[in-house]
Amino acid sequence: MVQQAAVLDRAFAALSDATRRDILTRLGEGPATIGELAGPAGMTLTGLKKHVQVLEDAGLVVTEKIGRSRQCRLGGERLDDAMAWLTFYQRLWERRLDGLEAYFTLQKGLTE
Amino acid sequence: MVQQAAVLDRAFAALSDATRRDILTRLGEGPATIGELAGPAGMTLTGLKKHVQVLEDAGLVVTEKIGRSRQCRLGGERLDDAMAWLTFYQRLWERRLDGLEAYFTLQKGLTE
Repeated sequence: MVQQAAVLDRAFAALSDATRRDILTRLGEGPATIGELAGPAGMTLTGLKKHVQVLEDAGLVVTEKIGRSRQCRLGGERLDDAMAWLTFYQRLWERRLDGLEAYFTLQKGLTE
Repeated sequence: MVQQAAVLDRAFAALSDATRRDILTRLGEGPATIGELAGPAGMTLTGLKKHVQVLEDAGLVVTEKIGRSRQCRLGGERLDDAMAWLTFYQRLWERRLDGLEAYFTLQKGLTE
């Protein structure tokens, strides 16, 4: 359970940065080298490498050294757990709204 | 677009901590005071307040001072954007898998 929590911590933390989300979107089109990713992001290789490292630690990206460059592609983690958690939260939220609606309907009935 | 990115940054960052996810789960059952949340979390009031502040900044929790205590409830942000983003990522991932499958089927055909 603690391990599961740590996986979710890392996944959500990795997604909490627009540059990292852009990297994932780009890799959805196919593999790319660090250099190819750095250009459009307007970043230095060093800056981009740090972001890729965070994504790699979260299992969202896999990298492989090919010759002199490092190739990146989408990793094995499908974010199913993160998705399941968000779905659960949405349900809590909707249930809360249902409760409020029932309350206001009741109030309306009492004052009419 | 930058504003939208900042909203997503805050939502994912707020979710990247198990204590904060537990707080949201608890508030799904109904409002609670800071004190009521701190007990089960095994935290000091000060520690818990910091987590609630992060959730409040992300719009996931709303707090209200009632008498001497601060009441917390689930906020107005439904995490629709975070959900939409994860769905988009899942599609990218599945498309990548489809591509790999097509590739291996092709390879298999060539070697048979």
